Amino acid sequence: MSKQLPIVDAGAERCSPLVREPLSETQAVDLAKVFKAVGDPVRLRLLSLIASHDGGEACVCDLTGAFDLTGPTISHHLKVLRESGLITGERRGTWIYYRVQPETLARLSAVLTPADCSVVTA
Amino acid sequence: MSKQLPIVDAGAERCSPLVREPLSETQAVDLAKVFKAVGDPVRLRLLSLIASHDGGEACVCDLTGAFDLTGPTISHHLKVLRESGLITGERRGTWIYYRVQPETLARLSAVLTPADCSVVTA
Repeated sequence: MSKQLPIVDAGAERCSPLVREPLSETQAVDLAKVFKAVGDPVRLRLLSLIASHDGGEACVCDLTGAFDLTGPTISHHLKVLRESGLITGERRGTWIYYRVQPETLARLSAVLTPADCSVVTA
Repeated sequence: MSKQLPIVDAGAERCSPLVREPLSETQAVDLAKVFKAVGDPVRLRLLSLIASHDGGEACVCDLTGAFDLTGPTISHHLKVLRESGLITGERRGTWIYYRVQPETLARLSAVLTPADCSVVTA
């Protein structure tokens, strides 16, 4: 919870933090970690496979077929995605079911949106 | 083979590519390169400093003061940002002036937007 970026007011949110003012070192370190997690083709595809899977969730059993990689390698990448807050995992029976965390995606997306700061309204 | 091809129209573009269907390997390799470029705190701060600078542009002379890094290190990071299409550089006199490429930011942002595909309208 303490990992969250400082909350700015709803209106200012529409203006990209990147454009509004220079990111602080702490904000940059925090965000870079998450961007680095998606800065890998396997992890990006995993994220996309999970997000686009029926019901918005997938288990390792649904994911391994798409890759020419071992189970442990896939698990490692899933762990990185999980630790960055990009996905959550819930154990049900034999499998862990993964879901994308829309809040984390939205946060990254908002940082990058080159919004026009001059039209910000509350 | 019986898998239906997704129908993509102008409206569907609003639904995040990540959620709509699994990213192809080529798309993922392509995008991951750009995400990796922003997956570094120094580069994120450089991007933000450039974007938020007066007139939306900045030269190295405007940027070095914010970091405890040598000129060549800053230049290296600027080169990575430039090669990923995140910034452009234009030489004017002694200095190269950098600007953020809003199209590249918008592309990354769109990939991550967890849009609700069910409410897509044409």
